[in-house]
Amino acid sequence: MAIPILPVSLKDREILDPVLKRAREDLSSTLALVQPIIEDVQKNGDSALREYTRKFDGIVPDSFVLDLSKFDPKIDSALEAALQKAAENIRAFHQIQIPEDKEILVNGNRLGIRHTAVESVSVYAPGGKALYPSTILMGVIPAKLAGVKNVQIVTPPQDGRLPEGLIAAAKIAGADRIVLAGGAQGIAAVSYGTQTITASEFVIGPGSKFVTAAKVYLSGLGVIGIDSPAGPSEVLVVADDSANPIWVAADLLSQAEHGEDSVAILCTNSKTLAENVRIEIEKALKDRPKRGEMKRKSIEDHGRIFVFPNLEECFAFSDLFAPEHLEIQTRTYKEDLKKVRHAGSVFLGNYSPVAMGDYISGTNHILPTAGAARIYSSLGVSTFLKRVTWQEVSKESLAELYPHVKTLSEFEGLDEEHGTSVKIRT
Amino acid sequence: MAIPILPVSLKDREILDPVLKRAREDLSSTLALVQPIIEDVQKNGDSALREYTRKFDGIVPDSFVLDLSKFDPKIDSALEAALQKAAENIRAFHQIQIPEDKEILVNGNRLGIRHTAVESVSVYAPGGKALYPSTILMGVIPAKLAGVKNVQIVTPPQDGRLPEGLIAAAKIAGADRIVLAGGAQGIAAVSYGTQTITASEFVIGPGSKFVTAAKVYLSGLGVIGIDSPAGPSEVLVVADDSANPIWVAADLLSQAEHGEDSVAILCTNSKTLAENVRIEIEKALKDRPKRGEMKRKSIEDHGRIFVFPNLEECFAFSDLFAPEHLEIQTRTYKEDLKKVRHAGSVFLGNYSPVAMGDYISGTNHILPTAGAARIYSSLGVSTFLKRVTWQEVSKESLAELYPHVKTLSEFEGLDEEHGTSVKIRT
Repeated sequence: MAIPILPVSLKDREILDPVLKRAREDLSSTLALVQPIIEDVQKNGDSALREYTRKFDGIVPDSFVLDLSKFDPKIDSALEAALQKAAENIRAFHQIQIPEDKEILVNGNRLGIRHTAVESVSVYAPGGKALYPSTILMGVIPAKLAGVKNVQIVTPPQDGRLPEGLIAAAKIAGADRIVLAGGAQGIAAVSYGTQTITASEFVIGPGSKFVTAAKVYLSGLGVIGIDSPAGPSEVLVVADDSANPIWVAADLLSQAEHGEDSVAILCTNSKTLAENVRIEIEKALKDRPKRGEMKRKSIEDHGRIFVFPNLEECFAFSDLFAPEHLEIQTRTYKEDLKKVRHAGSVFLGNYSPVAMGDYISGTNHILPTAGAARIYSSLGVSTFLKRVTWQEVSKESLAELYPHVKTLSEFEGLDEEHGTSVKIRT
Repeated sequence: MAIPILPVSLKDREILDPVLKRAREDLSSTLALVQPIIEDVQKNGDSALREYTRKFDGIVPDSFVLDLSKFDPKIDSALEAALQKAAENIRAFHQIQIPEDKEILVNGNRLGIRHTAVESVSVYAPGGKALYPSTILMGVIPAKLAGVKNVQIVTPPQDGRLPEGLIAAAKIAGADRIVLAGGAQGIAAVSYGTQTITASEFVIGPGSKFVTAAKVYLSGLGVIGIDSPAGPSEVLVVADDSANPIWVAADLLSQAEHGEDSVAILCTNSKTLAENVRIEIEKALKDRPKRGEMKRKSIEDHGRIFVFPNLEECFAFSDLFAPEHLEIQTRTYKEDLKKVRHAGSVFLGNYSPVAMGDYISGTNHILPTAGAARIYSSLGVSTFLKRVTWQEVSKESLAELYPHVKTLSEFEGLDEEHGTSVKIRT
C-alpha cells in the first residue's frame, strides 16, 4: 500500500470532509484522568509531584528546580553554533512583532493603547519520543522579547540528568530555570506553584494529550493562560508541475517522521506530479529506513494526494483545512500567498522546506494544528502581550457627550448611577 | 453598615489576599449542567433548541433568525444619534488597532507576517437584568474592522419581540443577522449551527454563568474561539486628596449598579478622602434609590476603601488586582499611567468616569475581569485577527544554513527526513 492518490473537486465533500475533520484529540476522557492529579498537586505540592514523577517517569530528581545561573553546560561547538544562529534568527524575526503603543484624539479626548507583558511564563518542552531544544528557543525567545520577567522551562526529568544541549538552549534563550516535571503533574506544579516551584500565569508549548488536557483544564478554570492546544503535526503542500517530486516527497515524510498520527497532504493540479511523488515516497521509505514503520503508518493512514482540477481549488481546500504548515511550490507562489487566509506558517517556493522553519530560519514552529489556524495564530511576541487601553476625557467633551450617555444609560436601565456619574461632572 | 475603610500596607496579605482572590465564578458545577444541553443541541439542532428556549425563556420565536436586511427599526432621534455617535467613536479608536503586515530579510531569507481575519463571529448580548445595545456595538464593530465577513448577534428572545433599539444597534454596527436564542443552548446553536442557524467559529461577549460555561466548554473542545471569560463587573479607583469625593462615590456606585456581586474598590493615600467618599456613598444611596438594595449589597459585601501609606502601594496593589476598570484620579495621573501593567481599561483624571468608556468615548467595554487582565486583553480588532507567518528561503541561504539544520535535527533524532529535506536541496 502506498499514499492514496485521489482525483477530486471541491464538491466531493464525502471524500474531503473526513480529511477536514481530522482527529482533534478528544480530550474528554483525558480530562477526567488529569483532574485528580491536578487537584492533588494543587493541594499537596511537592509531595504529590514526587509521587506522580516516581510513578510516570520512574525517577525522582534530587530537586525539581535547576537554577540555570548555576550551570555551565559543555556542548560541542557545532551544536553551540547552531543554537546561537537559530536564536539570532528567531530574535530578528520576532523583534518586528513588538507593537508600538498608540494614541489618538477622538471627539476631543485622548485615547490610547499601552502594551504590557504577562509577568511569568512556563514553556513546556516534551521529553519522550524526541527531545526538542528548538522548542525551547521558540517558546522562550518571544516571551523574553515581549518583556516577560520570569520564564522557566518545564520538562520531564528523563533519566534524572538533562542533556547538556537542552540546558544550553535554555540558557541561550534566556530562561531563568528549568523545572524537572512532566505530564499533567508538571503543568499543575507550574500553574499553582509548590513549596519549591514558582507558579506561572501563562503556560505554553506542545506536549502529550495529558499535558494538553491539563493546560485546557487549568485555562478553563482561569488559573493560567495558554497557547492554542497542540495536536499531531501536519503539512499541506500545494504544488504544480514545476515542483520537484523528490523534494515534495521528502517534505511529506518530514511530517510523517514526527509520529504515526502526523498528517501529510499534497494538493496538486498535476496528475504527473502526483504519481511521481508517490513513487518518490516509496523509494525514500526504502532508502531511509529510520523511523520507517512510523513514517509508513502516518503516510498510509493520514497521507493523501488530492488531484484538483486547478490550483484555485487547491488553495480553497487549503483554507478550509487550515494546515499547521503550508508549503506552496508553484510557479506563481508569490501571488498565491495572497490567497492564503488560514494557515499556521507558509513556506514559499522550492527552497523553503518546513524543516527550515522548524530549526533555523527565524519563524516560530509552535503553531496551531487540526484546523485551529482558522481561529488562532502561531506563537509570537504578542502571545505574551496585552493591550491596556486608556482614556483621558476632557471637561468639554464630557459635557458635549453627556446627552448621549443619558440616552443610552436610560435605554439600558443604568441611568441612576452611570448617567449620574457623568452628569455631576458637567 | 457602610463601605469598610481599612488602613493597610502591601504587607497585610491576610486582609488583601481575599480581595485579590475575588470570586472567579466556579464553573465546574455549571459545566456539568450545560454539557447535556450542548450535546442535545449539537445532535438535534432546532428541535432541541426549541425545547430549551420554551423551558428557559418561556417562549418560542416564529423563527430563530432575524435577517437584519429586512428590518427598518423605528427609534427616536436621540437614541439614533447616541448610537451613531458611539459607533463613530468606537470605529475611530479601533481603526488604529489594525496592524500592518510586516516583512524582513533575515539571513538572506524573506520572512513576513500577514494578518487575516476569522471568517465568522457570534456576539452574545445578554438579555435578563439589562439589555445592552452598547455591547452589540462593542462586539460587532471591531470584528467588522478586522474584516470578519459573517457577524451575527445571539441574544435571548425576550418576550418574542426584540426592542427596536437593539435591532438598530445591530444594523448600525454592521451585523448580518440576529439569532434569538439565549443561555448555553444559544451558544451551542451558534457554535455547531442548526438547520436554520449559521455556525460561527468565534463566539464572544458577556453573559450568565451558563453562557460562560458553554463558551469555555466549547472552546476547550476546540469547536470555537472565545474572548476571555466574563465575570462580575469591577472598578478600582486610585485617588489622592485632589479627587472629588462625590464623583468617586458615584463611580463606585456605577459598578455596584451592575449587580450585587460587582466589586468597587477605592485605594487612596488620603484618610480624609476615604472618609468623605464613605459619607458621599451613603448620601447617594439615599438620594438615588433606584436599584438601591443591589447597590447596597454590592458595596457592603464587595466594596472596600483601602488607605495605603502612599500612592506607590496603591498602584502596586492595583497591578496585583488587575482590575477590569482602573480609574486614576490623582494630581500625577499622566505619570501614574506608566506604572500600570495589569488592567483592562484605564480612566485618567477627574473627567473620565467609567461610564464614558462604557458608552461613548470609543474604547471597548468588553474587558477581562477577576484578575484576568494579568494575562488577557480587552476586546479589540486583534481579537479577530491571526498572524500568518511566511518565509521564502533562498537557495544560497539554504546551503549556508544546512550544517546547522543537520546538527539540530541530529540532536533531536529527526535527521533522517528533516535533515534530508534540506540536504537534497543544497
